Amino acid sequence: MTDKPGIVITGASGRMGQMLIKTVLDSDTARLAGVVERTGHDWVGQDIGIAMGGPAQGVIVTDDALAAFSTAQAVIDFTAPEATLAFSKLAAEAGCVHVIGTTGMSETQIADLDPAASQTVIVRAGNMSLGVNLLVQLTRKVAAALDEDFDIEVIEAHHHHKVDAPSGTALMLGEAAAEGRGVSLSEVSDRGRDGITGARKKGDIGFTAIRGGDIVGEHDVLFAAKGERIVLRHMATDRAIFARGALKAALWGQGKPPGAYDMIDVLGL
Amino acid sequence: MTDKPGIVITGASGRMGQMLIKTVLDSDTARLAGVVERTGHDWVGQDIGIAMGGPAQGVIVTDDALAAFSTAQAVIDFTAPEATLAFSKLAAEAGCVHVIGTTGMSETQIADLDPAASQTVIVRAGNMSLGVNLLVQLTRKVAAALDEDFDIEVIEAHHHHKVDAPSGTALMLGEAAAEGRGVSLSEVSDRGRDGITGARKKGDIGFTAIRGGDIVGEHDVLFAAKGERIVLRHMATDRAIFARGALKAALWGQGKPPGAYDMIDVLGL
Amino acid sequence: MTDKPGIVITGASGRMGQMLIKTVLDSDTARLAGVVERTGHDWVGQDIGIAMGGPAQGVIVTDDALAAFSTAQAVIDFTAPEATLAFSKLAAEAGCVHVIGTTGMSETQIADLDPAASQTVIVRAGNMSLGVNLLVQLTRKVAAALDEDFDIEVIEAHHHHKVDAPSGTALMLGEAAAEGRGVSLSEVSDRGRDGITGARKKGDIGFTAIRGGDIVGEHDVLFAAKGERIVLRHMATDRAIFARGALKAALWGQGKPPGAYDMIDVLGL
Amino acid sequence: MTDKPGIVITGASGRMGQMLIKTVLDSDTARLAGVVERTGHDWVGQDIGIAMGGPAQGVIVTDDALAAFSTAQAVIDFTAPEATLAFSKLAAEAGCVHVIGTTGMSETQIADLDPAASQTVIVRAGNMSLGVNLLVQLTRKVAAALDEDFDIEVIEAHHHHKVDAPSGTALMLGEAAAEGRGVSLSEVSDRGRDGITGARKKGDIGFTAIRGGDIVGEHDVLFAAKGERIVLRHMATDRAIFARGALKAALWGQGKPPGAYDMIDVLGL
Repeated sequence: MTDKPGIVITGASGRMGQMLIKTVLDSDTARLAGVVERTGHDWVGQDIGIAMGGPAQGVIVTDDALAAFSTAQAVIDFTAPEATLAFSKLAAEAGCVHVIGTTGMSETQIADLDPAASQTVIVRAGNMSLGVNLLVQLTRKVAAALDEDFDIEVIEAHHHHKVDAPSGTALMLGEAAAEGRGVSLSEVSDRGRDGITGARKKGDIGFTAIRGGDIVGEHDVLFAAKGERIVLRHMATDRAIFARGALKAALWGQGKPPGAYDMIDVLGL
Repeated sequence: MTDKPGIVITGASGRMGQMLIKTVLDSDTARLAGVVERTGHDWVGQDIGIAMGGPAQGVIVTDDALAAFSTAQAVIDFTAPEATLAFSKLAAEAGCVHVIGTTGMSETQIADLDPAASQTVIVRAGNMSLGVNLLVQLTRKVAAALDEDFDIEVIEAHHHHKVDAPSGTALMLGEAAAEGRGVSLSEVSDRGRDGITGARKKGDIGFTAIRGGDIVGEHDVLFAAKGERIVLRHMATDRAIFARGALKAALWGQGKPPGAYDMIDVLGL
Repeated sequence: MTDKPGIVITGASGRMGQMLIKTVLDSDTARLAGVVERTGHDWVGQDIGIAMGGPAQGVIVTDDALAAFSTAQAVIDFTAPEATLAFSKLAAEAGCVHVIGTTGMSETQIADLDPAASQTVIVRAGNMSLGVNLLVQLTRKVAAALDEDFDIEVIEAHHHHKVDAPSGTALMLGEAAAEGRGVSLSEVSDRGRDGITGARKKGDIGFTAIRGGDIVGEHDVLFAAKGERIVLRHMATDRAIFARGALKAALWGQGKPPGAYDMIDVLGL
Repeated sequence: MTDKPGIVITGASGRMGQMLIKTVLDSDTARLAGVVERTGHDWVGQDIGIAMGGPAQGVIVTDDALAAFSTAQAVIDFTAPEATLAFSKLAAEAGCVHVIGTTGMSETQIADLDPAASQTVIVRAGNMSLGVNLLVQLTRKVAAALDEDFDIEVIEAHHHHKVDAPSGTALMLGEAAAEGRGVSLSEVSDRGRDGITGARKKGDIGFTAIRGGDIVGEHDVLFAAKGERIVLRHMATDRAIFARGALKAALWGQGKPPGAYDMIDVLGL
């Protein structure tokens, strides 16, 4: 036993789940308090170290999330929207910080987190990396500083398994650009450009999505005017940055008042 | 009078027309033999130098294309498909080399050039730059050397006035990639990616189009696999390269047997 | 005659001089009040339009700077350090705003502008483009937000005629990064990397200079950490942006109190 | 036991050694026949799987290279020049294919491999990735196709631990460019650009080295002319590509006549 905050990881067998487990195991400032998988998964009941193909770690995979949360200070959760809603209730009940990296949540689902956020700390972000969150801030400022002589395009590249376009992070950057300009993204968004499109409409924010290989995630925000361009670029080359960001959020949340936070709060940007 | 080949420029008042005129006037190896505009245009009858806002050049803009062609060794033509078809008949009649940079010609219109090509030299290309034509060759070779573990994407960027996407040059690069792989572009082309697309299909060739500012024309061919990527990139920063390429083609065509040629022939690639 | 501010351009026959003249002639908000060249230059006494190979403009090139300045509201000056010092005295005497884009001024020469700046408005900048000055601001902020886990590199590319490396703008960006981190650039600057260099020193700011073709000017500020990178990029593709920035500064200076200003002031960044 | 070729890995405890071991263990077409470390290293005598922190693999780390090589069909060796020379004699004695990824070998050391190459297959390359070797070929061809109006620059970026600049791969690309042009690299090489350099000399091949974060390895070959540029780029994002290339070489070498080969031979480029 130790004084380091105990962390539970949900969705243990997934790619992000395993990355999160390794990050917590390697950490000097947190300990792995529990690991959750869904009922019936063959990892349930095994030592997580063994299940992942390495030495034993002394932590048994469980399907009883509430029991696991009750022994911990935070849960990190990159699963799916419905699972995340269920976990938010249990985390609130257990008094755990709930760090949510789950993507694809609807507006309604996000609102459904409110009751839990009145009881505990929830940190939710579409992208947990320091760099991307900084890029969001810069995009808002640059969009505010430049006028519509600068055409804005958000260009992203991801691996060939990705099923949606543009990426959630690209949309987040587009939202930040629209906010900076004081316009609504839905009114100026220009996506899926193909065929006879006509000239680009002044004020539009364009999106393009490149897919190939195992690209982790790259985002460019281009501001192009007559004779000059500014590009704000982020490249992620290792998924571990998202896990490290999530762990940082879990530690940051200790002792904070209940509420809904994002990575801008965590990073103090 | 001089022994340098005389060149006629059509579409004199357009952006490319003026660029072509300046390129010929600046050339040491060719002379401006004539300048053509459509009947009724207010430049007709004026000295071309004066019309363009500079000193007189001793060449009067005419709407009689055949008369102009008959005094020249080559005509350079970046106009529109129907005008180009008409000019091809006149160039053949006059015995002039016909250099065609006109874009947007249909398969049928291209076939309609055949009678003229049996009488004179026609050089036609979607892009007259040395670099782009070299890129097309490289793309074909690299696509042939790599297997489908490498996902191919063609990414292009152009100014905000451009009305179609992807660019003709991007499609030319996509065709070269498909040829290298021995597949038909129409069967593997993936354009206008947006929304829930599903995972990228193995073997597809993707296209994305960026629009902004006054970007002259930039093309990337990306080959992305597990752990590595190759990018073949061309950037045009000055439209004069297209005019210089066209002039090079006009000079190259002198003394060649009648036929339909492209820039690969001219550049000896 | 008109109410638009009258602008004098010095160094009329140089590449930037001609660019500045064209920019003022094309402007709706300023008029060309005079053009200065050095005594003995064969443009002196000619109409500037004719000298530049176009139609007459009604402005005669002069070698009497004070006379020219006395009829104007501002002088724009991209010449050489000693000429600029002499012009600053004359501009102060004439009560003109003095916009200085001259590069290569020493600390001493910059200090020698002070007497003039106590009498009139001086706007001096190593780079007059909106985008570069914005990039300088962003670089300072990002360097302050990130710790030394992010290695900083400034990468610039220019045409093959450039005689010094790194560019003045690259050094300006390096200074901004050092300020953001609260360190002295001279102590952390790593230039001309070649041979057995040893591992990169934590906290260093590296500079690399690419030279080729007619690249107008491109600057990247790279922040590279474990698993992620941020790049802030500016591309200039047309020297006219520097002329437009200088004209903007000349107009901005009208009615301002005497003093030494830079483009950050002009752009309100 | 199996019919798959047996592979020995030298330098087992190093970063590349472990990567090679994992690649062979994951392979369907080869088996791990042995693992070598230097006498006295504490891994010697342990099961390699346990030593690397995972489950046992049934292969014990040994310091008797000859014994290990004698049971195998190939040895893959990314160690240091002197160790590699010693291993080449033992591989020749054992009749093993010797795949050498060791960097920093002098001309003399490379010549010292000749006796071994007369007895067995040696495949040696400065970079084992498919993409880089393809880039070398392309660079030679493009340099041959373009004249000196195109300035050539080789730009590379690597992690902050790298101790030399430019990278061996950058020099290999520079050599290929020089060969394509029919010049000697040593006469046109321009490295460590800094200070008052004067204008770029026509025909020079420039090198620049960026260092930061954990960048695996990125190489650009830039061809920059008036108004256009071509860039040939390779990005490595995972060291596993070098291990996969080495394994491919080990398998390719089975049954080939003795001799000194490189990756161009292996890849059939």
